[in-house]
Parts: sequence; structure tokens; C-alpha cells
Amino acid sequence: MEIEKIVKMVKCILEEENKHDFIPIEASGKHVHLSKEHIVQLFGKDHEMKIKKELSQPGQYLYEERVRVIGPKGIIDNVAVLGPARDKTQVEVSLTDSKILGVNAPIRESGKLEGSPGIYISNKNNMVKIKEGVIVAKRHIHMNKEDAQKLKVKDKEIVKVKVLSKRPIIFEDVLVRVSESFNLSMHIDFDEGNACAYEVGVMGEIHE
Amino acid sequence: MEIEKIVKMVKCILEEENKHDFIPIEASGKHVHLSKEHIVQLFGKDHEMKIKKELSQPGQYLYEERVRVIGPKGIIDNVAVLGPARDKTQVEVSLTDSKILGVNAPIRESGKLEGSPGIYISNKNNMVKIKEGVIVAKRHIHMNKEDAQKLKVKDKEIVKVKVLSKRPIIFEDVLVRVSESFNLSMHIDFDEGNACAYEVGVMGEIHE
Repeated sequence: MEIEKIVKMVKCILEEENKHDFIPIEASGKHVHLSKEHIVQLFGKDHEMKIKKELSQPGQYLYEERVRVIGPKGIIDNVAVLGPARDKTQVEVSLTDSKILGVNAPIRESGKLEGSPGIYISNKNNMVKIKEGVIVAKRHIHMNKEDAQKLKVKDKEIVKVKVLSKRPIIFEDVLVRVSESFNLSMHIDFDEGNACAYEVGVMGEIHE
Repeated sequence: MEIEKIVKMVKCILEEENKHDFIPIEASGKHVHLSKEHIVQLFGKDHEMKIKKELSQPGQYLYEERVRVIGPKGIIDNVAVLGPARDKTQVEVSLTDSKILGVNAPIRESGKLEGSPGIYISNKNNMVKIKEGVIVAKRHIHMNKEDAQKLKVKDKEIVKVKVLSKRPIIFEDVLVRVSESFNLSMHIDFDEGNACAYEVGVMGEIHE
């Protein structure tokens, strides 16, 4: 085999290795997960939610339908609704959004809603009240077992991630979530995204 | 001398030492510095700007007067005006604000306005256009020479600062600004503040 070919192969292998030490970053805007009950109350008994696009995590999607979120201080229009339906309705906002709405949303893992503030959600026709469910999603990394092995981390571990953006930040207190169904991706909110001048394609790496 | 007294003194000295290694953090909201010319154009020839309060940096203050900032995409009302007047009008926003306004504001040191976007500024009676001057202020630490010695940094040095908040972050790419007139304080914008769950009183420390 010619030396150039070997060099090319080695480069390719190194690039592939390298690529897997980087974590793609996604900045998530405010969004709502609705329960089946609230979908019926807002959109009607026979309404079928329309999928607009698949998200980075398998089986998760964005609906065409949008809602208004109404807090004691302010309202936010045109909020994305993600599917599939959940057991409990959950409103995920940034701290900026929570100040606009006028609620004191805690920084929580998805699904941990106990004692979080309630809010009103409406579309053009109907309005529902949730007693609790407004949270600021705690920054986290989705990954499968192989990613976890490669990155030398475990499920529920708290790590630091350095974001390689033009306003670089090391995020501490980042939750690792390992599941076979997950694609490798770190999720931050728009405050965190703007703080590091996030752009699509920005990568992070575990920081020791 | 009794042993308790000595222990107490040592504790006191250590606390004092420790206190001075911490850097108070301030999150600055969007604001405008107006030139004398623009003050006249907006508020009139005989108008005296009214000082509402002194800021943390000596000789800097917040005026009572507020303005509206008008971009191609959106407007922001009730924007603070800081004094004293500057040679050139400067509008400091967060990346969130710059997206609301619809301008592509660069992340810059205060005063470095060349090639930055223009914008319209109005009050209830008048409107001015600036050809350039909208920036996102690069995060920075004000300090005097003694602080710089203690923290072992120099003017214009780029450092990392760990913010000891409930959503801790290490900010990279933080500019050190040393001047005899400065009080020790790190300035971040509201995106950065929300990303680390900033609250008044939060401290940072230089991170090696």
C-alpha cells in the first residue's frame, strides 16, 4: 500500500475518533409538552395533532399547532408544542421567559414538576389552567451507552462542558442522561445559548 | 494571649483575605450612552438630564430619562440612559435584545463601535438615527491596581471567571480593565446573568 493512502486512512480514523469526543449542542427555545387531556380541552375531542418535524431525539417531534402561555405579568405567544403527549403538561421556559411571564420557575430536570408554578395555556378557542408545571430545564446531555463509555461518564453524573463557541463558556452542573434511545446532544436554553453566542453546529467537550 | 483569641484573629484574617479574592458580579441590562448632540436632538437644547442614581463605577450614573430603541424587526421601550454624555452614542444590548431588534450586534469592548449596526432612538417627541453603535458588551472586570495585584492579573488580560451561583458557569474570554477610578466589579449582560441564574450579591473568582 502506498504511504499516501496509509496517511489518509490514519487521518480519517483520527478524525472519526476526534469527532466522537465532541458533543453537538442544541439550544432549545421555550416549548410546551401537553397531556392528552389538555390537547382535547384546547383543540377538541376529534383533533389530530399534526407533526411538523422530527427532533434530534428519536420519537420526539414538533407539532404544527402553537399555543399562548399566559402568566400573571406577561404573555408569550406562538409557543412550540412538542409531542408525543405526556402524562402531565409541562411548560419549559428560560429564566428570561419566566421573568416576562412573572412566575418563579425552578431549574429542574424534565418531569420533576412538584411544587413548580402553574400557568394558563390558550389557543385561539380555549384556555386551560395547569396547577404546576412551569420549569427551566436543567442543562443536560442525551447519550447512549456507547457515547457514555467513550466520554467516560455515567447516567445521572454531573459534569462540566466547555462550549467551543465564539464567546466560550464552561457550563458546570450539567446532567448526563443515558438511554439506548438517545442521540448524543447537549441541550441548553436560549439564555445559555446567547451567553455563549451559540450558533447551529457549535460543539462542546467534557471538561475535567 | 489565650488560644481562643488567636484562633479568632487567624479566622478573621483568613476571612478578610478570602473576601478580597472574590469578585462582585453585576448583570447590566440594555442601556444607551448618548452623545451631547443626541441629547439635544432628543430632549431639546435647554434640557438638563436628571440623575436618578450613581452606578458602581465612580462618576457613572443612571438618568431619569428613558428612550425607545427601534430596529428593523422590533422595538424595545423604556431603555435606560447612562451618563455622563459620551463622544459617540452607544447602544448596549444582549444577544436576546439584538434578535428582538433585528440587528446583528457584534460582541465588543465598550467604545469600539466601528462597523457595528446603526439604529433609531426616540423619546416621546423626537427621533435620532445613529449610523453605527449597537454592540453586545464583551464581559469584563473593572478593577484598580491593588485589585489587579491581589488577583495576579494585568490590564487587557483575558481571564476565566467562575461564577458561584446556583447554576454555576465558568466564563472564558473575560477582559480585565484596570484603572485607578474603577471599583472591583465584573459586568455581564442579562443573557449571561440568566444563564448562571444570577442574583444580586453573587460572586465570582478567577479560574486558573
